[in-house]
Amino acid sequence: MITSFSNAGIKAVSALIAKHKERKATGLFTAEGKKIFLEAPKELIRDVYISESFEKGQPDLPEDIPYTVVKDEVFARMCDTKTPQGILTVFQQPVYSLEDMLQSGKRLFVLLENIQDPGNAGTVLRTAEGVGAAGVILSRDSADLFSPKTIRSTMGSIFRVPYLYAEDLCSIAKELKKACVKTCAAHLAGNEPYDQADYGERTALFIGNEGKGLTGQLTAEADLLVRIPMEGKLESLNASVAAGILMYAVYRKDRSI
Amino acid sequence: MITSFSNAGIKAVSALIAKHKERKATGLFTAEGKKIFLEAPKELIRDVYISESFEKGQPDLPEDIPYTVVKDEVFARMCDTKTPQGILTVFQQPVYSLEDMLQSGKRLFVLLENIQDPGNAGTVLRTAEGVGAAGVILSRDSADLFSPKTIRSTMGSIFRVPYLYAEDLCSIAKELKKACVKTCAAHLAGNEPYDQADYGERTALFIGNEGKGLTGQLTAEADLLVRIPMEGKLESLNASVAAGILMYAVYRKDRSI
Repeated sequence: MITSFSNAGIKAVSALIAKHKERKATGLFTAEGKKIFLEAPKELIRDVYISESFEKGQPDLPEDIPYTVVKDEVFARMCDTKTPQGILTVFQQPVYSLEDMLQSGKRLFVLLENIQDPGNAGTVLRTAEGVGAAGVILSRDSADLFSPKTIRSTMGSIFRVPYLYAEDLCSIAKELKKACVKTCAAHLAGNEPYDQADYGERTALFIGNEGKGLTGQLTAEADLLVRIPMEGKLESLNASVAAGILMYAVYRKDRSI
Repeated sequence: MITSFSNAGIKAVSALIAKHKERKATGLFTAEGKKIFLEAPKELIRDVYISESFEKGQPDLPEDIPYTVVKDEVFARMCDTKTPQGILTVFQQPVYSLEDMLQSGKRLFVLLENIQDPGNAGTVLRTAEGVGAAGVILSRDSADLFSPKTIRSTMGSIFRVPYLYAEDLCSIAKELKKACVKTCAAHLAGNEPYDQADYGERTALFIGNEGKGLTGQLTAEADLLVRIPMEGKLESLNASVAAGILMYAVYRKDRSI
């Protein structure tokens, strides 16, 4: 049993939880809770830590995955959450390519440009699973999908929806167009109401930054600017809500074909 | 200029920011930023605090509203945000009744049962403004609409969408049905796909707790159980995304009539 916070393994986990830089450098991330541990692909599991009292509760864990028991106080300090769940897993980040996404034959791509809120990014990934999307592609300056808050909001979708961080979303958009994917930007100045748009056989939705929307450069790559109509004095919807409404509009047409 | 954190006014504001109990007892709440101060109905403004350096930047505030200048360090400590925006307003909470909502003639009501995430509650209010809803009714055990996090996520909708905390959502549902509002529960066991449902002339959507969904009691009050179809292994969508998709499904029919 690990009884000290100065243990090298514990310190490394602590850094993974707290620092984007650390997650990026190692290609690892962490998630708390028994559910995500059981649901995750086993080949991505690198380490499992459980608290002393969690072990005493006879948690009935799979026997073929080794784990390390940690003293409760050390476990709590390592997790940095108010109510630690007693089990924390270190995972390898899955890796995907645009090619993988295109070859899946699935219909919908979501491009997130400079999304800042980790909850929004995770929620989009979760909705993307709901509509069976080919994948989610984020600009490099978007929120980190592997921050603990994002991982919580994905509800396990992080293991089931292909994703990609791209240096340049405009090149991605160009590649998608070459592959006959219709590019549709969610835009306040869009002239096509979202529920009447022709999204084509395969669709890429562009979703912009929470405050500023899409950049001019990425908007210029769109075949279509779609608009979600709004009453009141509202300037925009929440980014993950807007993305959800659009993803389901595309999915809906898919199902009715 | 206020130069000490022990000033009674500053302490009172601090308590409003930090404590739900304090907001409930006083019927007041706070919001940071110039935008919300300028957009809010003037009759709801009780106090305005600006930081010393914000004042020096000649913020061009309306002359008919008095404000108090606060030393920067005191202002920052009072606000409890990482990057205080230099202006904080104390507002009176607007008050609405179910009667008001019914008499508005608007079509859509949203009932939130035990929604726990303040961001979700605020985001639903924001989407409700987008679809011109009659109002949002929350069970008493739902998140506080007036917590600083929720206020940020409403983007000003808190002043424009009627809302109500109800002791008993089932009685609200009964009253709505008496007024010929069709009650529709978002439910995983729903047999009506959300995009084919008949939402009637006026509609009340029931949205349940993030993890547990709707209670059996409230579900029993629904005329209709609607389901959002999902691929993958997902158990549910994020509550504010599900609410957004359903609100827009109702709104969409509204616009096409």
